[in-house]
Amino acid sequence: MEFKIAFIGFGVVGQGLAEIFVEQEAFLKEKYNFNFKVVAISDTVKGSVYDENGLDLKNLLELVKSTGKIDSYQEGIKGWDSLKTITDTNANLILEVAWTDLKTGEPAMTHVKTALKNKKHVVMTNKGPIALAVRELLEIAKENNVEMRYEGTVLSGTPALNLGLYNLAGSGITEARGIVNGTTNYILTEMEKGLSYEDALKQAQELGYAEADPTADVEGYDALGKIVILANTVMGASLHKDEPPCEGITKITAEDIVKAKDEGFRWKLIAGAEIKDDGSVEAYVKPEKIPLDHPLANIMGPTNALTYTTKYLGDVTIVGPGAGRAPTGFALLTDILDINRLLSKS
Amino acid sequence: MEFKIAFIGFGVVGQGLAEIFVEQEAFLKEKYNFNFKVVAISDTVKGSVYDENGLDLKNLLELVKSTGKIDSYQEGIKGWDSLKTITDTNANLILEVAWTDLKTGEPAMTHVKTALKNKKHVVMTNKGPIALAVRELLEIAKENNVEMRYEGTVLSGTPALNLGLYNLAGSGITEARGIVNGTTNYILTEMEKGLSYEDALKQAQELGYAEADPTADVEGYDALGKIVILANTVMGASLHKDEPPCEGITKITAEDIVKAKDEGFRWKLIAGAEIKDDGSVEAYVKPEKIPLDHPLANIMGPTNALTYTTKYLGDVTIVGPGAGRAPTGFALLTDILDINRLLSKS
Repeated sequence: MEFKIAFIGFGVVGQGLAEIFVEQEAFLKEKYNFNFKVVAISDTVKGSVYDENGLDLKNLLELVKSTGKIDSYQEGIKGWDSLKTITDTNANLILEVAWTDLKTGEPAMTHVKTALKNKKHVVMTNKGPIALAVRELLEIAKENNVEMRYEGTVLSGTPALNLGLYNLAGSGITEARGIVNGTTNYILTEMEKGLSYEDALKQAQELGYAEADPTADVEGYDALGKIVILANTVMGASLHKDEPPCEGITKITAEDIVKAKDEGFRWKLIAGAEIKDDGSVEAYVKPEKIPLDHPLANIMGPTNALTYTTKYLGDVTIVGPGAGRAPTGFALLTDILDINRLLSKS
Repeated sequence: MEFKIAFIGFGVVGQGLAEIFVEQEAFLKEKYNFNFKVVAISDTVKGSVYDENGLDLKNLLELVKSTGKIDSYQEGIKGWDSLKTITDTNANLILEVAWTDLKTGEPAMTHVKTALKNKKHVVMTNKGPIALAVRELLEIAKENNVEMRYEGTVLSGTPALNLGLYNLAGSGITEARGIVNGTTNYILTEMEKGLSYEDALKQAQELGYAEADPTADVEGYDALGKIVILANTVMGASLHKDEPPCEGITKITAEDIVKAKDEGFRWKLIAGAEIKDDGSVEAYVKPEKIPLDHPLANIMGPTNALTYTTKYLGDVTIVGPGAGRAPTGFALLTDILDINRLLSKS
């Protein structure tokens, strides 16, 4: 089959994937038999363009870089909003990478539901709809015989979620825990080097790791959203995203960090989920003192890591980036290639 | 579809999977829509039994445990050898887990070719045929429109190979390196605790980590076979398994280990493969002094780890068991479930 792709949103993540597409198109076609064209991009700020025969991505990336807009693209239909792009273009794969309100999951939620109901595959990196309604969305996908994927919602392109969903299927996963927020891990790493919390946060903001309003990171809510997604999708839980106990790193002082190190420990913000004996799943986010010889203690800077505890393999840990333009762009690609692999058999 | 499975070989690995099947049959059917029955087992020592309607695995495991044989199983046809079991039973999936000569790859090579040419899917854990002829075998599988998988040849059930082949497809892998032999890593770990090489080796043998003849492990040949498989399958190389430079751990003394530690390093047996600028792939096995703050330095005991260096994700590392009854049995299951996932779509 040929994938005809529409980008809903063309910010950092969308552009990250577009850059990979431009660089790797020939390789992806040859090596993975992945045939595609990008037919539409719709972004509330940068504009919208649709050409059923395919867009020139390289040209569009240059336009965004030089003008911040895609309006001056020479060909195609302009001005279609997200929903019209989802429903009325010939796209059969929708990439949902628009800005989204984490509390309501909108407008991503509506985008995803509309796409699935119109029998279009969906790949997304927005946590909102998955944290709020993954079961319902997977059910709609199934009813319409299309695929929905969201690897990028946890550890960006590091395949933590697909590892649990596919590679470790049948391994008897009983627990997952790890460092799933790079901003806080970076701050803790810098504090160990001697910076105050305030200076470490400021540095994280300057480097683009932390937002101007760092609340979601430092209070643990970002990590909580990720572990809830993981618990609900990999471990069969039905947790609401605000339900599990959540404590961030704001109460940890430079003195705490030095003291722990002297005792052979290192403070880490740990997100975890565990299947209890009665089958229920408990999740949490909290700072923990980890022994220095434990693998998670040695994950430094913005790097993320997740350990699955399983019945047949014991512990399996994956370590990799948790954010960034290329890694999150790649998260979309890994899901798209998996859908391509599945559908190539049919 | 329904998988009708034949075990060629019923040693530690085959029994490892059989135990998982017995424990998880209902769960695997419900959760992954994996419908299967085991129709045949053929083992040169333990005997052979075939029933087109399915065997009672629990009963067979008990027989092996109590008598070392499966001959006294009440039902079915007895005495078919490996090749007859592959060609003449109604099995559509062959599990190749027989004893194999690493130099010639036989009899596994003949088993696998025969199965593929008879249009039967193959999943195996034997390194021989893959290290010697993976390209040819994949070509035969393709010609006959069946799947061939071999996750268990590298890091047992820790999904190191499938991570590179599938999850990191398109990430731009340029290098893979890691600790892929648990026996030598266990010996080095114990030597750091104060044991001599001889005592550490003896302990590894008592625990079942090392063979009576430990040459393949301690001289690096086992690690070499794994990195060659990885280079040839994930990185597109065409290396012969005896080609790359290979040095084991036998020259490392207790003094070397103490001295390295004092300097902030730890000796590890590293297997690596790298894509060079001209597109060629160079592989090697050699002991290296790794800085103590490097993730690979903290992989202790029989645990394995592999780091992929990629263009879009930077480094992605997976850590997990590299051997053992349940982990290697699970390696077969992860491949079988992936084939089931692919074929469920068709």
